Amino acid sequence: MDHDSPQERWRRRTEIPLAVGSMLFLGAYAAQVLVHDMPQVWRHVCFAVVLGAWALFAVDYGVRWRMSGRGLKYIRTHWLETLVLLLPLLRPLRVVRLYEAIQMRHGEPRLSLYARVMVYAGLSVLLLGFAGALAVYHHERLAPGANITTFGDAVWWTCSTLSTVGYGDKAPVTPVGRLVAVALMACGLGLLGAVTGSFSSWLIQVFTLEDAKRRARNRR
Amino acid sequence: MDHDSPQERWRRRTEIPLAVGSMLFLGAYAAQVLVHDMPQVWRHVCFAVVLGAWALFAVDYGVRWRMSGRGLKYIRTHWLETLVLLLPLLRPLRVVRLYEAIQMRHGEPRLSLYARVMVYAGLSVLLLGFAGALAVYHHERLAPGANITTFGDAVWWTCSTLSTVGYGDKAPVTPVGRLVAVALMACGLGLLGAVTGSFSSWLIQVFTLEDAKRRARNRR
Amino acid sequence: MDHDSPQERWRRRTEIPLAVGSMLFLGAYAAQVLVHDMPQVWRHVCFAVVLGAWALFAVDYGVRWRMSGRGLKYIRTHWLETLVLLLPLLRPLRVVRLYEAIQMRHGEPRLSLYARVMVYAGLSVLLLGFAGALAVYHHERLAPGANITTFGDAVWWTCSTLSTVGYGDKAPVTPVGRLVAVALMACGLGLLGAVTGSFSSWLIQVFTLEDAKRRARNRR
Amino acid sequence: MDHDSPQERWRRRTEIPLAVGSMLFLGAYAAQVLVHDMPQVWRHVCFAVVLGAWALFAVDYGVRWRMSGRGLKYIRTHWLETLVLLLPLLRPLRVVRLYEAIQMRHGEPRLSLYARVMVYAGLSVLLLGFAGALAVYHHERLAPGANITTFGDAVWWTCSTLSTVGYGDKAPVTPVGRLVAVALMACGLGLLGAVTGSFSSWLIQVFTLEDAKRRARNRR
Repeated sequence: MDHDSPQERWRRRTEIPLAVGSMLFLGAYAAQVLVHDMPQVWRHVCFAVVLGAWALFAVDYGVRWRMSGRGLKYIRTHWLETLVLLLPLLRPLRVVRLYEAIQMRHGEPRLSLYARVMVYAGLSVLLLGFAGALAVYHHERLAPGANITTFGDAVWWTCSTLSTVGYGDKAPVTPVGRLVAVALMACGLGLLGAVTGSFSSWLIQVFTLEDAKRRARNRR
Repeated sequence: MDHDSPQERWRRRTEIPLAVGSMLFLGAYAAQVLVHDMPQVWRHVCFAVVLGAWALFAVDYGVRWRMSGRGLKYIRTHWLETLVLLLPLLRPLRVVRLYEAIQMRHGEPRLSLYARVMVYAGLSVLLLGFAGALAVYHHERLAPGANITTFGDAVWWTCSTLSTVGYGDKAPVTPVGRLVAVALMACGLGLLGAVTGSFSSWLIQVFTLEDAKRRARNRR
Repeated sequence: MDHDSPQERWRRRTEIPLAVGSMLFLGAYAAQVLVHDMPQVWRHVCFAVVLGAWALFAVDYGVRWRMSGRGLKYIRTHWLETLVLLLPLLRPLRVVRLYEAIQMRHGEPRLSLYARVMVYAGLSVLLLGFAGALAVYHHERLAPGANITTFGDAVWWTCSTLSTVGYGDKAPVTPVGRLVAVALMACGLGLLGAVTGSFSSWLIQVFTLEDAKRRARNRR
Repeated sequence: MDHDSPQERWRRRTEIPLAVGSMLFLGAYAAQVLVHDMPQVWRHVCFAVVLGAWALFAVDYGVRWRMSGRGLKYIRTHWLETLVLLLPLLRPLRVVRLYEAIQMRHGEPRLSLYARVMVYAGLSVLLLGFAGALAVYHHERLAPGANITTFGDAVWWTCSTLSTVGYGDKAPVTPVGRLVAVALMACGLGLLGAVTGSFSSWLIQVFTLEDAKRRARNRR
């Protein structure tokens, strides 16, 4: 990949609008779920924003696909982008790349390997957890016999699920809510395992470095 | 092991029938447990299919044993095959190998190491979880005081157990159900640990590669 | 350490009696807790066996200490043995070493590194879990408001605790029971983490080896 | 960093008073929360001690900052110290460093790498857990519908949370209590993962060393 290829220029030019689009997407979806007494007009506006943001992502994906000139193979080799297209909730992950790009331009050191894994995986978990709490709240709120009746309950349930603590004082009872919960467990636990593992590796690295420094100082 | 030895030829020729047999086995067992108002005739058919598939595996194991000409030592060195004989639920794992064989014939790259560990261990967990949900549902369904009364409950309980979340809204109460649960925990957690660990290692590998690529690009 | 030093000879000669003693210790403790309508005479016998086994360990520890001729330093460098003296429930771990010694005499290959970690840590967890179930059952059985009222409940609770699933259908309510539970969590989770980690590493090793073998076969 | 720089001398001279200050801080906070019928005078004394200890840390931080002569950059490169200033509960961690300094002066071997990670992370978890139990107890004690009504309950809940067992017999119900719980999960699970991982690595190291020793002995 060249530094000044058309693809690269397209990527740089669309960075900001796409980041804004993803934020709008998440915000409009959250507003739709959380504000119950929203006037019909605003409800339509939210829906339009969600659809518009999605269209933005689809157009971007289409342009990149045409530029690559590789047909169906593109989908396979760029599966992460395809996933982001289907699940725009993960779009804000791009913000990390933006932050890194800015840092690099300022000549400041970039994040270390473990820190980057932690930041990416941790942010993904936060976004997935927020989306999962929204979806579960949406489907459980009015179900008979449900115990997740406020958004606070949904967030508390999400935290207790992602940490695998699982108190059980709050748990989904509808089929859709449980499906969301299983998806949340499957994605969240793998990502959180990566966060915990990286943190552990990083801690051992810090101690090893400190050890080496102290030994060098004593030898002098 | 030669590429055209009799063992190898036997293996290639029995691949497909055995895969079909394992699917039939799992399907017939599931039908027996899940369909309550099955006519007596079909119940007998299911039982025959289960027995027949098991006989198929036993014959295959016997032929391989004779071919190896190594007596009792074979059982020890091929313990995985012995385990599969006793637990035919794991048979579909062979499908992964089939897929890899097809890919290799097409000259396409095989799965990476971590991806293979994830696929094998993940599929094992899926199969074990499905079988565990079936068995627990079978034994809890009519027990007094049980709270796992539908197959959906059993699947939800299995997911909450394998992820170690353990809400406790559903839990087995019969001795046999609890025994199945303990077996599920013991097998499932080890395998899921392997999946999580491999995913974490794979993520760090991806970030390391990307790092190296970017550094090389900047140097140019 | 010489192969024929007095210490080594003492170790070999006391191996069997100490293993027997530890089994008697565990059995007598279990009988005391589990059999409620035991006649007074047998109760005294059990108590005597427990005390006798402990005395045996104390004498063995004392003799080794004198032989080493190293005073208080011995306690620090042999802290595992000191721990076993205080917690004779872990004594049966020595059985693994006995099994390895027998295997080595027969010239058979010893267990691989990961297998040994798994066997030692797994056995420790089993013994600790059994002892924990006994102790919790002993203290919860007659407590008001307790829900662990049979030994089966205690074993089920132990399994759900050690796997960190924690359904919560059974949980200790007395201070002593909770203290035992916390000790069980602290020891068990560390050891089970070692089992899971070793299993994961072993699985990856197996896949790596198979990979190398297949590649070598294809090259031929 | 020179061994006799003013910074180093300041660090050595303030070691003991700061350790004492952190203990006083923790003790006064605990007394305030745990003793309900404390006379008004003592309540004021406790509050003064908490404030005084915090002032001590602030002064120490300020002096170090001036000495470094690096302005705002200091905050970024010494983020651990900044964190400790904001969260004086972690101050007692310095005790480990004190212990190591004493050991080194006596010429005794320092803790191994894994042991140090375990000690630091384990102590942090203990301190965080104690502070978390205090805070949750403080906010849940008088809440309507709360089930954490004694400090023993709070400690039991903390243990069941940090081990990710999560029985659910005790769980916070107030927003502040749940916020503390989420913070406890986020910090505690990462740190405990480091403890478990280090323990596992250490165990494998011990087995590898023993293996090598035995092989060397057999060769002789």
